[in-house]
Amino acid sequence: MITDFGLRDHYVGVMKGVIYTINPSVRIIDITHAIPPQNIKAAAYIVKSSWRYHPPGSVHLVVVDPGVGSKRRGIILEGERHWFVGPDNGLFSYVIKEARITNAYLIQNPNLSLKEISETFHGRDVFAPCAAYISKGVKAEDFGPRIDDPIILDLAPRVEGDLILGEVLYIDHFGNIVTNITKRDIPQGPVSIEIRDWRIEGLSRFYSQVEEGRVLALFGSTGHLEVSINLGDAAKVLGVKYGERVVVRVMGG
Amino acid sequence: MITDFGLRDHYVGVMKGVIYTINPSVRIIDITHAIPPQNIKAAAYIVKSSWRYHPPGSVHLVVVDPGVGSKRRGIILEGERHWFVGPDNGLFSYVIKEARITNAYLIQNPNLSLKEISETFHGRDVFAPCAAYISKGVKAEDFGPRIDDPIILDLAPRVEGDLILGEVLYIDHFGNIVTNITKRDIPQGPVSIEIRDWRIEGLSRFYSQVEEGRVLALFGSTGHLEVSINLGDAAKVLGVKYGERVVVRVMGG
Amino acid sequence: MITDFGLRDHYVGVMKGVIYTINPSVRIIDITHAIPPQNIKAAAYIVKSSWRYHPPGSVHLVVVDPGVGSKRRGIILEGERHWFVGPDNGLFSYVIKEARITNAYLIQNPNLSLKEISETFHGRDVFAPCAAYISKGVKAEDFGPRIDDPIILDLAPRVEGDLILGEVLYIDHFGNIVTNITKRDIPQGPVSIEIRDWRIEGLSRFYSQVEEGRVLALFGSTGHLEVSINLGDAAKVLGVKYGERVVVRVMGG
Repeated sequence: MITDFGLRDHYVGVMKGVIYTINPSVRIIDITHAIPPQNIKAAAYIVKSSWRYHPPGSVHLVVVDPGVGSKRRGIILEGERHWFVGPDNGLFSYVIKEARITNAYLIQNPNLSLKEISETFHGRDVFAPCAAYISKGVKAEDFGPRIDDPIILDLAPRVEGDLILGEVLYIDHFGNIVTNITKRDIPQGPVSIEIRDWRIEGLSRFYSQVEEGRVLALFGSTGHLEVSINLGDAAKVLGVKYGERVVVRVMGG
Repeated sequence: MITDFGLRDHYVGVMKGVIYTINPSVRIIDITHAIPPQNIKAAAYIVKSSWRYHPPGSVHLVVVDPGVGSKRRGIILEGERHWFVGPDNGLFSYVIKEARITNAYLIQNPNLSLKEISETFHGRDVFAPCAAYISKGVKAEDFGPRIDDPIILDLAPRVEGDLILGEVLYIDHFGNIVTNITKRDIPQGPVSIEIRDWRIEGLSRFYSQVEEGRVLALFGSTGHLEVSINLGDAAKVLGVKYGERVVVRVMGG
Repeated sequence: MITDFGLRDHYVGVMKGVIYTINPSVRIIDITHAIPPQNIKAAAYIVKSSWRYHPPGSVHLVVVDPGVGSKRRGIILEGERHWFVGPDNGLFSYVIKEARITNAYLIQNPNLSLKEISETFHGRDVFAPCAAYISKGVKAEDFGPRIDDPIILDLAPRVEGDLILGEVLYIDHFGNIVTNITKRDIPQGPVSIEIRDWRIEGLSRFYSQVEEGRVLALFGSTGHLEVSINLGDAAKVLGVKYGERVVVRVMGG
């Protein structure tokens, strides 16, 4: 499960109750419920960072759903024996490329959701039942028609000459600033990284490679370029927020 | 499990260790551990909002316990094949009406708790073992005498002419302000809702029905009247706190 | 699991995915993921406070790892049919004495970790696989050579005449201030406790023994001396931080 529901409320626990009621033998793993409220890009990054560490047969239930109650669609994606369930708003933009998604279906069948569907909590009423039924072996095509146009957001950085123009995609609990720039986006050779008024020369390999309190840039455990502070909170010190500009300058390119 | 222990400490994990030691095959669901510290009314609302989404045979372990170590009683409630375990301080005020509770028992049997009972952590020493034994099939009457006076708080709003006088019962992670006023408390027809200096005309059905940043009122997924902001944090913007007054004015009544 | 990874990110969920992929029938309990970032002493206290409430056969996976990527060692400790897995940086200082640890081994075998080992996330790549394999019955000695010098921090208070000089080891969710002074460190008889500008005369047994809002000292549920406020947040009111000095004065000693 990946949601922005937080752990303060009953929302997540209730979704689990719904899932266990339908499939008592399922095993539920919380990836996170602390996606910044309604931040679809951050959720897309977390889906990307987590799905491959789960075994085939996993159902990834992702609910970050600013459009709940409106006409946005609910979808199921299928690929490599992984299933992805959630609102069709771009949450699966990364995974659609990576997980070799072969099929996508709408979630429409009222017999496969709770009897009463609220206008504000499809996580409980629609998506949790859907994920539970799939984990029990119900076919994705039983939920609704196949579609070929799930929403895909353009999350890649832009290249302009020697510059790679990216943005802050995610800020983690330690204050590491994760960008949308990955290993593949940066050519070999020396680079500098610019964010706010800071300029970082070159890439490090791990945190304690620099002195305590020093700003560094490295490819994090997900292959994305991160700006960090050894034993410190980079996001706080640099005052960086979601969506901010990050520039990689390729030297002597 | 519903507690105010937070997830920062070992308290919840230790309770789970105690439960699994007694009943290794039980399945534990965290509803929330983030009840505002010692807020019994908020906990009562969460119990109400969550219990029915769990299958028959569930044991609801609820520990919000400002009186731990004093003479407050521990109780087990039984009804519709659901059990509720916790301190007798009003936590089950809503559920006693809704879940058709048929029996209530005190928790007194020292053979069904940990050997050593601390003065500060009955969650670990008394309530977790109790819930674990019940999940294993131990009868509620084995824990102590039957009682007929569990504490019930009056959580209903007051009606004065055209006014329904309620209060803020809960504030969720998104900043939605949940009141103690429910669908049943409000007659059909136009209403306005007053909270702080704000006045909201009429009820919405879902969040994105109003523009981004606009304040609205609707019946949330639990049937309680909520004051919200589409894509915003109503509690923060309105500066509202637990226990504050909320008034519904019935128009032309 | 005990980590400082927080629940905001995918780190913990991904570790669980890795564990379940290796051992689908294991049961994972979260003790906490909210150890203050890189605070090894606080983690050592949580390990101490939790391990004994779990059944024999438990594997305690503890990752607070400021030195990740550097040359710090990974270790497995074995004792009383409990296993402890994590970086060798003092995390197990308390438990080494309490759990009658009989053997310690290095984690080095590349066949028992993920294929690709990142420089920043050994929790996922090394420690989670290690704990999963041990839970499946793989022997600790299969991971690497036996060692007899795991790092042990000196966490005991110092005694100077009538004074016991301790420090703040942990601050819990309720604001209770936990010290490194335990029941055994304090002789029978009257005492006073000093912290910041506060002086507390004598020990209480439980919180509601004093009036609401009053500061008290008691032995908490882990046997450590705590400074608390009945129905209040002592850490906030007293303005106390990790590592601060706490003095117990033994009267008429």
